[in-house]
Amino acid sequence: MTGIVDARWCEKTFEQVKNWGRWGADDERGALNYITEKKRAAAAALVRDGTAVSCALEFPTQPAADNPHPALHMMVQGGDACTVGGPGLEMTSDFLGVAFHGMAVSHIDALCHVFVNGQMYNGYPGTDVLSVGAQRNSIMAARDGIASRGVLLDLPRLRGVPWLELDTTLTPEDLEAAEEAQGVRVEEGDILLVATGRDARREQHGSWPPVEGMAGLDATCAPWLHERRIAVLGSDGISDALPGRGIEGWSVPIHQFCLVAMGVHLLDNLCLRRLSEACTERGRWEFFLVVAPLRVEGGTGGPVNPVAVL
Amino acid sequence: MTGIVDARWCEKTFEQVKNWGRWGADDERGALNYITEKKRAAAAALVRDGTAVSCALEFPTQPAADNPHPALHMMVQGGDACTVGGPGLEMTSDFLGVAFHGMAVSHIDALCHVFVNGQMYNGYPGTDVLSVGAQRNSIMAARDGIASRGVLLDLPRLRGVPWLELDTTLTPEDLEAAEEAQGVRVEEGDILLVATGRDARREQHGSWPPVEGMAGLDATCAPWLHERRIAVLGSDGISDALPGRGIEGWSVPIHQFCLVAMGVHLLDNLCLRRLSEACTERGRWEFFLVVAPLRVEGGTGGPVNPVAVL
Amino acid sequence: MTGIVDARWCEKTFEQVKNWGRWGADDERGALNYITEKKRAAAAALVRDGTAVSCALEFPTQPAADNPHPALHMMVQGGDACTVGGPGLEMTSDFLGVAFHGMAVSHIDALCHVFVNGQMYNGYPGTDVLSVGAQRNSIMAARDGIASRGVLLDLPRLRGVPWLELDTTLTPEDLEAAEEAQGVRVEEGDILLVATGRDARREQHGSWPPVEGMAGLDATCAPWLHERRIAVLGSDGISDALPGRGIEGWSVPIHQFCLVAMGVHLLDNLCLRRLSEACTERGRWEFFLVVAPLRVEGGTGGPVNPVAVL
Amino acid sequence: MTGIVDARWCEKTFEQVKNWGRWGADDERGALNYITEKKRAAAAALVRDGTAVSCALEFPTQPAADNPHPALHMMVQGGDACTVGGPGLEMTSDFLGVAFHGMAVSHIDALCHVFVNGQMYNGYPGTDVLSVGAQRNSIMAARDGIASRGVLLDLPRLRGVPWLELDTTLTPEDLEAAEEAQGVRVEEGDILLVATGRDARREQHGSWPPVEGMAGLDATCAPWLHERRIAVLGSDGISDALPGRGIEGWSVPIHQFCLVAMGVHLLDNLCLRRLSEACTERGRWEFFLVVAPLRVEGGTGGPVNPVAVL
Repeated sequence: MTGIVDARWCEKTFEQVKNWGRWGADDERGALNYITEKKRAAAAALVRDGTAVSCALEFPTQPAADNPHPALHMMVQGGDACTVGGPGLEMTSDFLGVAFHGMAVSHIDALCHVFVNGQMYNGYPGTDVLSVGAQRNSIMAARDGIASRGVLLDLPRLRGVPWLELDTTLTPEDLEAAEEAQGVRVEEGDILLVATGRDARREQHGSWPPVEGMAGLDATCAPWLHERRIAVLGSDGISDALPGRGIEGWSVPIHQFCLVAMGVHLLDNLCLRRLSEACTERGRWEFFLVVAPLRVEGGTGGPVNPVAVL
Repeated sequence: MTGIVDARWCEKTFEQVKNWGRWGADDERGALNYITEKKRAAAAALVRDGTAVSCALEFPTQPAADNPHPALHMMVQGGDACTVGGPGLEMTSDFLGVAFHGMAVSHIDALCHVFVNGQMYNGYPGTDVLSVGAQRNSIMAARDGIASRGVLLDLPRLRGVPWLELDTTLTPEDLEAAEEAQGVRVEEGDILLVATGRDARREQHGSWPPVEGMAGLDATCAPWLHERRIAVLGSDGISDALPGRGIEGWSVPIHQFCLVAMGVHLLDNLCLRRLSEACTERGRWEFFLVVAPLRVEGGTGGPVNPVAVL
Repeated sequence: MTGIVDARWCEKTFEQVKNWGRWGADDERGALNYITEKKRAAAAALVRDGTAVSCALEFPTQPAADNPHPALHMMVQGGDACTVGGPGLEMTSDFLGVAFHGMAVSHIDALCHVFVNGQMYNGYPGTDVLSVGAQRNSIMAARDGIASRGVLLDLPRLRGVPWLELDTTLTPEDLEAAEEAQGVRVEEGDILLVATGRDARREQHGSWPPVEGMAGLDATCAPWLHERRIAVLGSDGISDALPGRGIEGWSVPIHQFCLVAMGVHLLDNLCLRRLSEACTERGRWEFFLVVAPLRVEGGTGGPVNPVAVL
Repeated sequence: MTGIVDARWCEKTFEQVKNWGRWGADDERGALNYITEKKRAAAAALVRDGTAVSCALEFPTQPAADNPHPALHMMVQGGDACTVGGPGLEMTSDFLGVAFHGMAVSHIDALCHVFVNGQMYNGYPGTDVLSVGAQRNSIMAARDGIASRGVLLDLPRLRGVPWLELDTTLTPEDLEAAEEAQGVRVEEGDILLVATGRDARREQHGSWPPVEGMAGLDATCAPWLHERRIAVLGSDGISDALPGRGIEGWSVPIHQFCLVAMGVHLLDNLCLRRLSEACTERGRWEFFLVVAPLRVEGGTGGPVNPVAVL
């Protein structure tokens, strides 16, 4: 399909899958525009038995091989001091703090998270991401939440393994094989979730440093994702296969093609084990999915707990 | 309905509306148990045109009369330093920090947030809320999200005013009048949202110190809420009318009855202006509502962006 | 002395008091260069009875009129959970967080804290202060601490009042009158502390919003400070008189002249009440003063607890 | 000197070196009481050439084997957005956050940091360390700074090695040998600093996980420290040898004896390389040392930058 995949190929593909201008010169929503109200209503109509399944990991406050900057969770006032505010009310409270990007927190990437050659989605200059927050392409593009049809492609299931090995790189053919095996087809406006079995591997072997590798999509999946017109891409990894093909300037091409060229928001470090089980039980791989990032002006994304309703 | 409302009445009512043991001695989900899968599926079936509306305020990083401890949003790496991680990848990232309880952040209260006489929902001792996190009744009770039928009771609309004055205290009769005017009835497993017009007032007059008052429910609403078997209660205020009736030991009786006695999670400081407009346009006051708190073990709640799908 | 003080005067004075290049084109220490080892040894020799006095306020974790972004102090592990790390060791720990600039935290300003016309001390461009930290003029200039002769000029004492009124603007003549009254002279390499009685006023009347005013030095003090070759300037206020003279582009001229032109580090929001008492008792207004900022690479200053030894 | 060192020995020694009640039933300063004003004045008189040397590491914001919870340093406003506060003032600012205990931050331990059998120094119950801060034995005991004679015992120098191997456990005999070799004697009220060469080893081999070991004092040093009446103990490690003798309940006996029994504050993770060089050059191992923790009410210690003046 692709011939030689090198920097030149990446540059050409970047141009080819570019959605800049597609939804206007001022657009900051990118492929979220594929989620029309009609699409959303149809997605809600997929709900059958009403089971709700979270696609997020526990908030990772403990250091680990893939969590060098642990999230903060501290009590402001615990049960031992619940009347500190004065008599008559017993209350506790806490504080959450997190630099959510990286490999440990279930989070969404806003379109301002990555640049290519100094530019963001729709051609905005990277310098618009100021030290006081992004002036363009912030997570506010998803301020009303992202609710659409979710589709899970479960690659370990396809291959009959508990998890994909660390050096696994998925191609469009793999994605299509999963579609066929599961009897589902990725369509315009979908939130595509790709399971690689990272949860199961971590449970068995513990966390590992991402430099050792992580299963994910090859750069060559970009045209396929573009053609299918997905709205959002998510994974239990970070969608990109690590360490990738080692092409200079294209260390995480899926991030670069999706966030910058296509305007596709990404969901990283999801927990897809529970969802995979629920889908397998039902023999259905589509569901209503709701992702509700905090409304942070200037934010580059946010920690999320995506909820699938089946 | 209630005769004299004093400490004695509160104590009696507390016992009367208590759901302790109702879902087992080990239960930590409280009234979330009212949201059965069937209920959730029926709620999803309410979706018509597919419009999604956020019920959250912007993440409040600026100090204000009702925001003495502003949330933190800081860049870790901005556009001016996007290649800090090494050449070949241009990336930005940020940090969020928040002590979300109080009067400024749209958030959910877990059942460990308030005690009465040293006890939490289902009789767990308040001392179970350790300085390292709650051992019982944490927000993990809502780990798979809260998705159910939402019902908005719009009190300013009922009264034909842009907002309720600060000293407004709502009674069960007010809630029923709103139900009747809107042609909707609050039922078992619902997420009840009560609009007081706080957003509109703040937009007009700016924030005010909560000690000046805030419209909300009178203590006497507790038996009504219990009888209707709601799952969750939310408001653009904090559900409690402030400053309340001044009964010693019962400064925020709705919080105390809901969180501790009934096991009803609360949504505080929502933004209901957009939802109210969307409901008014459609003449429908029920919708599918999804609240997805972060999965924080030991957490006393969390910042949320509840999304209504109509 | 000065004729008309306007923008033109400020610009001329800025050039006149500029120390750029004085200590080399690569210098980032500015007037700290005035503190020679000899100066420091002589300062240590001022110690007589050995009393130590802190010049810092308590770490301000509570919101106040002058503290809109309170510092964070949270326990990580309290006495109720002291064995969380495992049996055999009972331990507690906590977390400190602070955006120290502003009007509430006793802190030092690094030379990268303020620019004039896009430039920092010694001509470095303001764009060197990246979102990942200052590449020039960071607080690392004071990495080995600042220890020198401290001199306190106590203006309320001079005027026989408990505190200076909010609209008080001090001139060089005021500083010299204090010198004379106290029998002390500010000299090369000194850390000059100017007391305005802010502590006493706050104790009496509570905190006030800085926009209401704050006693401090008039812009016309800049040439005097330059001529005396002070190393550091500190105050219980922020050295600048607020709201100042309202000259466009020169809202805090003392900050602008000191940090940018002269390379004089500033100590803001000190607590000088205790030091003033100790000096009055002894009839001596010079002492050995040690300021020890944390060694933060790229930092714009830091919270400090300056210690005077008399 | 000690016979069998086991739990029984630790318990006996704990009683033997206990200073509880020595400075009154209400005392919270412990061995800081040894630093009289006279002692401090004599210490200041040690200053000769006026060189100042910092004993702190750089604020450790990067993860490392010994830094699983990195400190936070983030810009609030960088050079790219220096006029955010309005025209006329160009300003930058930043945020520091740190849970300073552990093995990476140069910090001081307050007397509330460790308990033995549920008790702190002077018999206060550990439960006094609430989730809202320590009610007793907080770092406020050192609110006016700690300034006294510092003495450096340089063990790598004594042994003619760049650093002590990880399994090195120092005895009183080692300390006395260093005293003799250096011609100095540790006395009442001193701040004793023990160099193990950790800086040099880290520079050569990188950080290592503390479970691999760290050179430090054996439990048997406690009576010696008590007898010498030191005020504070510090090290480039954490004073305790790790992993220690494996006595149940006494995993870090030096911490337990010093903080709890003697009331001796500890300085952990110092950087003593520079000081060692300065002392070697001069052939003098005593100096004026100033440690100035932030005034945090209820704090369990704090990050510090101790400054030695020689």
